[in-house]
Amino acid sequence: MKILVTNDDGIMAPGLLALAAALRDTGEVTVVAPESPQSAVGHGITLHKPLRLRHMDIGVEVPAYSSNGTPADCVILGTLGELGRPDVVVSGINAGANLGEEVLYSGTVSAALEAALHDIPALAISVCAYEDVRLDAAQRIAPFLVQALAQFPLASGTILNVNVPNVKPDEIRGIALTRLGRRRYQDVVIKRTDPNGRPYYWFKGSPEESDSVAGTDIHAVAQDRISITLVHFDLTSDSHWDGLGDLQTEWGLI
Amino acid sequence: MKILVTNDDGIMAPGLLALAAALRDTGEVTVVAPESPQSAVGHGITLHKPLRLRHMDIGVEVPAYSSNGTPADCVILGTLGELGRPDVVVSGINAGANLGEEVLYSGTVSAALEAALHDIPALAISVCAYEDVRLDAAQRIAPFLVQALAQFPLASGTILNVNVPNVKPDEIRGIALTRLGRRRYQDVVIKRTDPNGRPYYWFKGSPEESDSVAGTDIHAVAQDRISITLVHFDLTSDSHWDGLGDLQTEWGLI
Repeated sequence: MKILVTNDDGIMAPGLLALAAALRDTGEVTVVAPESPQSAVGHGITLHKPLRLRHMDIGVEVPAYSSNGTPADCVILGTLGELGRPDVVVSGINAGANLGEEVLYSGTVSAALEAALHDIPALAISVCAYEDVRLDAAQRIAPFLVQALAQFPLASGTILNVNVPNVKPDEIRGIALTRLGRRRYQDVVIKRTDPNGRPYYWFKGSPEESDSVAGTDIHAVAQDRISITLVHFDLTSDSHWDGLGDLQTEWGLI
Repeated sequence: MKILVTNDDGIMAPGLLALAAALRDTGEVTVVAPESPQSAVGHGITLHKPLRLRHMDIGVEVPAYSSNGTPADCVILGTLGELGRPDVVVSGINAGANLGEEVLYSGTVSAALEAALHDIPALAISVCAYEDVRLDAAQRIAPFLVQALAQFPLASGTILNVNVPNVKPDEIRGIALTRLGRRRYQDVVIKRTDPNGRPYYWFKGSPEESDSVAGTDIHAVAQDRISITLVHFDLTSDSHWDGLGDLQTEWGLI
């Protein structure tokens, strides 16, 4: 089995190395990852500049390449180019949760979705901590996830988004199938003035943890469970909108 | 009514100016848009560098600012900062369709989704052509859309993704409520060698038009209809996956 490993924290991230090492007994691992951290890049692909691939020694004995592109670019380079098509794409291990609507911004998840667009089974795996990140539980589950993906196909266009609580493996209280929760943020724009008197702005967002509802990914990891969400790229909403009839009538005047 | 206008083609794009002009009679328009084109940036937000806002004269008499951020950044700057909270966010008029899974990459759509994350009614509007783009039909429908949005609330977290065929207004055959279609791409990675003998790569993707199925956005615009899709940011898939039980059993061993 050919496994392409990528991430959005960049090729030197400990989580990437841990993932590549953890999957070496499961298949033939190749790494293609951004040369620098790409958090919150969303699902960007690079159309207007040429991309480079640089062979790297990452300290784990697998072929590894860095790219000046985004995580989605890395997947395209690692699947459609001369490296050959992988059987599974694994993105991570991300240092930081990818829960709820964060998924929309997540470079980690976008890499897996890019693979799904090319009909390659894929998963994104993240640990829910930015500091003192434990990689051991994620390392232990990753091979099981890859084997399950290879054995049991997902619906077309669907990936696994996996979030692992930042606790010891023996403190994990099982696996939960979840839906994406919604975390409201207390976002603020902070205005400062540079030494030349010109204003500049920083964003600061703090999630309100109170929105943790049973059945969501947010709730599962708060309960020390590994959250697995089936995520797809179809953003169509089934909701109803009363404005349409009105609009159709008015627009009919033209 | 306060209307924030943004886009991903950049502050000097003809579609942005046309939109700002078209909405001046509907409400109090403010423009915050990227200083340069940001196509296919996806839903990125900028956390690691400060953002600037620069007052611009765009030739339409509305307050206008360019930013060094992404479309989603522009929405945050234009809603949470000193400009005050708008009642509606309108992103466009994009030169180029945003159909099917392209929505996932689209800076135009991501701006509207960012507004929805902050509970502000929003729409994205695109014309389905990259060259010889007609803006007149999109300009004519935009005020109706904004008024309908203000009058008839969308479900929480939902936006309108509007695609206008590139034909004369009197050739448009009505408005269709659609779901996102799926266009498969014949993506290729093209390898070239630079003057110093080092390889570099370009992406090239050509959609296969044959995937146009009735009920989709792709089909509607091919029939010269204006496509309106209700789009939300919940990427949870309701599909089933057989791998879970297996995984829960195996992981139980730890």
